[in-house]
Amino acid sequence: MLTDNPRLARQLEFIERLDKLKGVRRQSLLTDSSRRENSAEHSWHIALMALVLAEYAPDGTDLSRVIRMLLVHDVIEIECGDTFAYDAAGNETKQERELAAADRIFGLLPDDLRDELRALWDEFEAGESPEARFANALDRTQPLLQNYRTDYHTWRIHPVTPAQVEDRMAPVREGAPDLWSIVEEMYRVGRAKGYLQED
Amino acid sequence: MLTDNPRLARQLEFIERLDKLKGVRRQSLLTDSSRRENSAEHSWHIALMALVLAEYAPDGTDLSRVIRMLLVHDVIEIECGDTFAYDAAGNETKQERELAAADRIFGLLPDDLRDELRALWDEFEAGESPEARFANALDRTQPLLQNYRTDYHTWRIHPVTPAQVEDRMAPVREGAPDLWSIVEEMYRVGRAKGYLQED
Repeated sequence: MLTDNPRLARQLEFIERLDKLKGVRRQSLLTDSSRRENSAEHSWHIALMALVLAEYAPDGTDLSRVIRMLLVHDVIEIECGDTFAYDAAGNETKQERELAAADRIFGLLPDDLRDELRALWDEFEAGESPEARFANALDRTQPLLQNYRTDYHTWRIHPVTPAQVEDRMAPVREGAPDLWSIVEEMYRVGRAKGYLQED
Repeated sequence: MLTDNPRLARQLEFIERLDKLKGVRRQSLLTDSSRRENSAEHSWHIALMALVLAEYAPDGTDLSRVIRMLLVHDVIEIECGDTFAYDAAGNETKQERELAAADRIFGLLPDDLRDELRALWDEFEAGESPEARFANALDRTQPLLQNYRTDYHTWRIHPVTPAQVEDRMAPVREGAPDLWSIVEEMYRVGRAKGYLQED
C-alpha cells in the first residue's frame, strides 16, 4: 500500500489500471506500417489533434472539454477491448458490453470523479453537444489518416463496403465540416484504387 | 495532396509527424512488464492523471493548460529521442538538442500554432508557473509508479544512486506536495530492497 488515504488509493488504482489501454490493439497501423496502433496512443494523438485543429470546431465549442472527452473516450476498452468499426456482429453487442465496462472501470474511482469522467464518456457516446460532435469527428478522421498513410491497409485486409465507410465518416460532416473535404478525398482515392467491396 | 489549403496542409503534416512519437521508447516498462513504454502512451497517461489528480494541484492552477502542456511536452522527442533521466552524458547535451528539435517540430505548423504549442513546451521546460510545476510533478511521478509496479525494473538494470533519485523527484514536493508521501514511500521501498547504488 502506497498510502493509507482511501481516496488517493482509489485514484492510484484507477491510474494503474489505465496502463492496460496501452495493450489494446486497434486495426490501424502506425504510418510506418511497423505494427498496429494501441488505444492509448490513439487517444493521445486525437487529443493533440484537437488542439492543432481547434479552429475547425463549431463556434463556441469548449475545446478543453473536447480534449478531456478524447482522453477518456476509449478507457472502457480496458474492460471490453476495441470493436473494429466494420465488425457487424461485434457492433450488435457493442453498446451493452461498453455500458457494463464503463460501470466497472469508472467505478474504481471515488464517486465524484467517477461521475465526472463517466459524464465525459456519456457525452462523447451521445454525440449531441458541439464538443462531442467535434470529438467524434476527430475520432473518425484520425484512423482514416492512418489508413491513407498505409495505402489503406485496413480496407485491404478486411472486406469493407462504400456504404459502411460513408456511414462511419458521416459524423465528420456534422462535427467538423471544414475537414469534410479531406475525408472525401481519402475516401475517393481508396475507392478508386479498388480497395472497397463494391456491390 | 489531400488539400490545396496551405494552412490545413501544414496542420496535417504536423499531425502525421506526431505518429513518430509512438515509436520513441522510454526506459519504463508497462506494468505487465511485456515491453517498454513509448512516449505517446506516456503522454496520454499523464494527461489523464492530471484530470484524476486535479485536486492535488495548487489552488488556482488552470488544469486545462496543464493537460495541454502534458500533451505537448514530449513531441520534441520525435526529433531527438528520449534521454534517460539518469544518463549523465546524455543530459549534458540534452537542452541544446531539445531546443533545436523544438524549432524543427513546431516549425512545421503555421506561425500562430507554432507559437502556441512552443509556448506550452517552453512553459513546461521552465517549470516555474503553478501549471508547469504540477505538470512536471506528474511527469516525474508516473515513471516512478511504473517502476514500482515492475519491481523497480529501471533501477535494477541501470546504476542509479539515491542522490539522483532525490534530485529527480524533488519537483513533486514543489508541484504536488500532497503526492510527495507516495513518492517517498516508493523511494523508501526500492532503496530498502537494495536496488540503488549506495555510496
